Amino acid sequence: MLPRGRPRALGAAVLLLGLLLLVGLFLLAGDPRADAAGGSCCRPTPPEPPDGRPSGPAAREGAPRPPRCQLLHVAIVCAGLNSSREVVTLVKSMLFYRKNPLHLHLVTDAVARSILETLFRTWMVPALGVSFYDADQPKPQISWIPNKHYSGLYGLMKLVLPGILPPGLAQVIVLDTDVTFASDIAELWALFAYFSDKQVIGLVENQSDWYLGNLWKNHRPWPALGRGFNTGVILLWLDRLRRAGWEQMWQLTARRELLTHPATSLADQDIFNAVIKEHPGLVQPLPCVWNVQLSDHTLAELCYLEAADLKVIHWNSPKKLRVKNKHAEFFRNLYLTFLGYDGNLLRRELFGCPSQPPTGAEQLQQSLAQLDEEDACFEFRQQQLTVHRVHITFLPHKPPPPRPHDVTLVAQLSMDRLQMLEALCRHWPGPMSLALYLTDAEAQQFLHFVEASPVLSARQDVAYHVVYREGPLYPVNQLRNVALAQALTPYVFLSDIDFLPAYSLYDYLRASIEQLGLGSLRKAALVVPAFETLRYRLSFPRSKAELLALLDAGALSTFRYHEWPRGHAATDYASWREAQAPYRVQWAADYEPYVVVPRDCPRYDPRFVGFGWNKVAHIMELDAQEYELLVLPEAFTIHLPHTPSLDISRFRSSPAYRACLQALKEEFHQDLSRRYGAAALKYLTALQRPRSPV
Amino acid sequence: MLPRGRPRALGAAVLLLGLLLLVGLFLLAGDPRADAAGGSCCRPTPPEPPDGRPSGPAAREGAPRPPRCQLLHVAIVCAGLNSSREVVTLVKSMLFYRKNPLHLHLVTDAVARSILETLFRTWMVPALGVSFYDADQPKPQISWIPNKHYSGLYGLMKLVLPGILPPGLAQVIVLDTDVTFASDIAELWALFAYFSDKQVIGLVENQSDWYLGNLWKNHRPWPALGRGFNTGVILLWLDRLRRAGWEQMWQLTARRELLTHPATSLADQDIFNAVIKEHPGLVQPLPCVWNVQLSDHTLAELCYLEAADLKVIHWNSPKKLRVKNKHAEFFRNLYLTFLGYDGNLLRRELFGCPSQPPTGAEQLQQSLAQLDEEDACFEFRQQQLTVHRVHITFLPHKPPPPRPHDVTLVAQLSMDRLQMLEALCRHWPGPMSLALYLTDAEAQQFLHFVEASPVLSARQDVAYHVVYREGPLYPVNQLRNVALAQALTPYVFLSDIDFLPAYSLYDYLRASIEQLGLGSLRKAALVVPAFETLRYRLSFPRSKAELLALLDAGALSTFRYHEWPRGHAATDYASWREAQAPYRVQWAADYEPYVVVPRDCPRYDPRFVGFGWNKVAHIMELDAQEYELLVLPEAFTIHLPHTPSLDISRFRSSPAYRACLQALKEEFHQDLSRRYGAAALKYLTALQRPRSPV
Repeated sequence: MLPRGRPRALGAAVLLLGLLLLVGLFLLAGDPRADAAGGSCCRPTPPEPPDGRPSGPAAREGAPRPPRCQLLHVAIVCAGLNSSREVVTLVKSMLFYRKNPLHLHLVTDAVARSILETLFRTWMVPALGVSFYDADQPKPQISWIPNKHYSGLYGLMKLVLPGILPPGLAQVIVLDTDVTFASDIAELWALFAYFSDKQVIGLVENQSDWYLGNLWKNHRPWPALGRGFNTGVILLWLDRLRRAGWEQMWQLTARRELLTHPATSLADQDIFNAVIKEHPGLVQPLPCVWNVQLSDHTLAELCYLEAADLKVIHWNSPKKLRVKNKHAEFFRNLYLTFLGYDGNLLRRELFGCPSQPPTGAEQLQQSLAQLDEEDACFEFRQQQLTVHRVHITFLPHKPPPPRPHDVTLVAQLSMDRLQMLEALCRHWPGPMSLALYLTDAEAQQFLHFVEASPVLSARQDVAYHVVYREGPLYPVNQLRNVALAQALTPYVFLSDIDFLPAYSLYDYLRASIEQLGLGSLRKAALVVPAFETLRYRLSFPRSKAELLALLDAGALSTFRYHEWPRGHAATDYASWREAQAPYRVQWAADYEPYVVVPRDCPRYDPRFVGFGWNKVAHIMELDAQEYELLVLPEAFTIHLPHTPSLDISRFRSSPAYRACLQALKEEFHQDLSRRYGAAALKYLTALQRPRSPV
Repeated sequence: MLPRGRPRALGAAVLLLGLLLLVGLFLLAGDPRADAAGGSCCRPTPPEPPDGRPSGPAAREGAPRPPRCQLLHVAIVCAGLNSSREVVTLVKSMLFYRKNPLHLHLVTDAVARSILETLFRTWMVPALGVSFYDADQPKPQISWIPNKHYSGLYGLMKLVLPGILPPGLAQVIVLDTDVTFASDIAELWALFAYFSDKQVIGLVENQSDWYLGNLWKNHRPWPALGRGFNTGVILLWLDRLRRAGWEQMWQLTARRELLTHPATSLADQDIFNAVIKEHPGLVQPLPCVWNVQLSDHTLAELCYLEAADLKVIHWNSPKKLRVKNKHAEFFRNLYLTFLGYDGNLLRRELFGCPSQPPTGAEQLQQSLAQLDEEDACFEFRQQQLTVHRVHITFLPHKPPPPRPHDVTLVAQLSMDRLQMLEALCRHWPGPMSLALYLTDAEAQQFLHFVEASPVLSARQDVAYHVVYREGPLYPVNQLRNVALAQALTPYVFLSDIDFLPAYSLYDYLRASIEQLGLGSLRKAALVVPAFETLRYRLSFPRSKAELLALLDAGALSTFRYHEWPRGHAATDYASWREAQAPYRVQWAADYEPYVVVPRDCPRYDPRFVGFGWNKVAHIMELDAQEYELLVLPEAFTIHLPHTPSLDISRFRSSPAYRACLQALKEEFHQDLSRRYGAAALKYLTALQRPRSPV
């Protein structure tokens, strides 16, 4: 029978608490000098007599949990593109198991900050706060320390966290970006309760023999207590550190050691260990399961084979997942769990812990609540309101040098068009900004795809922005807007992923932009005429002359000539054939050419999701804003055949889909009239014609 | 400071144990009559005085865990195709959090058994045992009970578990297939420790007012204690039940209640509750978090808003995930986590709990260990050895009636060819057996795709077998073998997914099989000539005459005429053009026609993964076994254009890939010589010619 009845339960709780206290006192009455001993490495419960079997998890599991809704603070130093990708997996694992509100304190460089700000803003995780701290600012405090570790200067930054983090913050868990949680972080936080009055830092013992020295001839590590401690997971009692004069303490030790050591080998960890060797009373050793270290010669096995439970895994080798370990498969599985985990699923509330909802979440909830589930366009409207998680610059990228007439190719794709990327790179040697609509698991496949391709991995000027999938309809215009917003050149070529531009187009566009004074002298959109082939093995034309020959031979046609000629008729292909100079064309209903415009052009209307009318509306808006439409006589781009995507085939045949599209078009037009007044009347007339492009 | 030192830890453990015992005694000294009261529904800790706030999780979390490596037993009744899909998500969630060895006792019908046997055999999860029990056998013991619940007869089967499960099994956790774990099942098992001597069954209170009656006019539920108990999660103390004469007990109660009730409304649950009402001392109420019930008018909120932690979610409404609940999104997220979770990641060991490895696992480990990582073909050999998880008949399927000349179309595909399925269904009105290579998440997308397609959901004779993705290379021949093994007709048409057969082919093949006495009179493979179009919008020929016209017009060509004519040249298209009767052709090097053969034909050689030579080897084997090759004069199939798949484009360009293929071909030939002796010499000669088909 279980306990029942409040008075009884209360009584029991009081009794239990008392007894636990007793046990606690008994356990804590150990010899403090034991702290100074090396202990035997890597047991589930930390240092024990050399002969000892581990005492089992009981002592650990008895740790009091922090109060249910207590806010827990986590600090992470994160710099550069790869770290900002890595940290996401850490955060996912932490959020998966957490039951407390969390606040992340992220010390970042500008690159990581821009990526992570966008990510967390669009992730909208309830009960998760995020603060950013500029990693450049404290650099002078550590840059004098020579360091050989692969983490570089940022590896040393954990030393100065007490100065970086807000003075009011008393305790914080500090994590490396290469750790993965396999349990609730509150259990780790609970270990603060074991700190004695003098202890300021909780650490897990090193699971390697590095600090014992003699790993090779002349291997002379920094001083440490026995095996030393690993700093991938730290409990930092900030206010005590500040009061204890931490800054002077570590600087003094570091300066002294640097007299005999040329540099740190393991960054902050060498200095932490040297300080601890000098002041062993500062450290509270933590159970080994809270930092299971998977370096090449790890002794971690001694820990995890005895433990019932792994809490945190630390990939503390530059090889990361490729590290050699006979249980590597096991650990990789835990890591891959969160690597591929759908981050959208972590947008779940913490029941019973009231917290400030994420910015925009309430408004979003209201808008969603106002939708009518019976409305035939419900799915469209829901999709349009969806806030997709966005990870900009997912892969290494070098911004193009500022050049006044440079142009970025802008496009969007999902997994089924990855095959186009290599060809596109061959056709377009300039910068690109591509939005990819992927699941978390697909994002990893995409990463491997790029890494495996010499063509793609050689390109540093292609920026890939991952927009995470959510909902049944392809958010084509939201994707375009993400890619457009991230273009860094003054001009953009608004293309689609299944088109290959003429080899010369990049150079030709830049020359044309300069010649025509696009944006400065002339408010215009430059039209790149579109063609298509239905053949898989097209010998791509090297010039306009070759293109015309293929057109005459029937190997090419103008784009959608058979199915939807209105889309491109206004380009006036007959004139283009003869043209020697750019010529102006007039807007016409349903016109949807591929254009080059200044980067600050109007955004795409996000209400158009799925397929149909998404570009038409944009061109209409350009016309309403009085952009001239100038067709370039030597420019062309060719659509390649492909299997229709699942997204398109699911909806093309549906009458409900067509009806919704019509409704959305009408609403778009009303908005247009509101914004542009009588000038927008001509679009209404056009709209009321019967045919509709789906 | 944490505890350290063995003697101290031991002393502490003894002390702690003693104290816990004391606390336990104190807690257990409650009034046994309280059991009989209705209690207030759905609190984290079960029944409390009406005014009581829940006493918090302390009492629950103090429950002793079962010993670290203790084997825990779980029984599940599972019948039919949908339940066998549902149970996988339950099992995944259970395995994700478990830290103990588990044994599943599955009471299944023949359909579920065949699916789940294959699934668990290929899943190879360490420290997981599975036993099957025939659900048909105990049917007579319950079929006399009229039942209106949607679970049908199988819903009642939990009543007779003490008789079905092995006599030596003392305790078991019984689960409905529609529950999802959010915690370690060992914590649930630990609650057995709270049973008094007389208690035999642990249950969570119902989280609805159903058993209070008066939900509507003349609503007269079966008798229950207060709100009654839900039987989606049961702790069953089997040996006590058997000793207490459970069988007579429930039968007596059921017979008596059926005098005044026409039938059970909630299957076994009505009877369990009626028995408990009569013998309240039998039940141990469990904390509500172990069965959070999400039916339409659930009161579960009272439970989970107070609890720090949800343990098990129960989708106990026929609406399942579509149930209306203001926190539905939260619960769906937990469910979707495991629905899409990669089951391969659960193949992880339980460190420190020695257990019998799954059948074949040791041999597999040895074979993998023998591979040379430096071998250029390492990836190929590893892929070939991979045991893929297989879920046969993933979707509803009716086996075709036995017909002596019936033929099943056999093919395999991955996500990027789903679009082919509708067209294929229109072209082939007969049975199909299709292997799909998918991730767990893609399998769900596939399910939605079929449900959304009227064409596909109308077909009951198409069997879909999901082979879960693992490794970098497409295991084409393993997939073919899975689909082939599941074909239920005497003949099979071995096709590829990007081919559409002539509309008349299904009828024509059956007639030809009968006429030619295929399999009985003649050992032959019937060749279906292959063509291709490079055009997306082909008006598919309705007859051989129309096909020939398209061929002459250049809209069609013979398959791979331009790139690889050797693959099909031996079909002798010139003869086919004129042929009025089947004609015999000779095997030739690299010949890879599409053929119809008896179901017991040789399997495909699984060493060919990725692309290349996979069909060639199979046809060679048919020839070695002296199958005649007979070309059918009216048969044809047409290859449609498609974007090259990622799998193919990744490897086609790689010289290492070609080299490996060559090595695999040579090894295949050696095997062929070993098996067929001198007769296989001609294949060697063919092999040594220079060109290789990739």
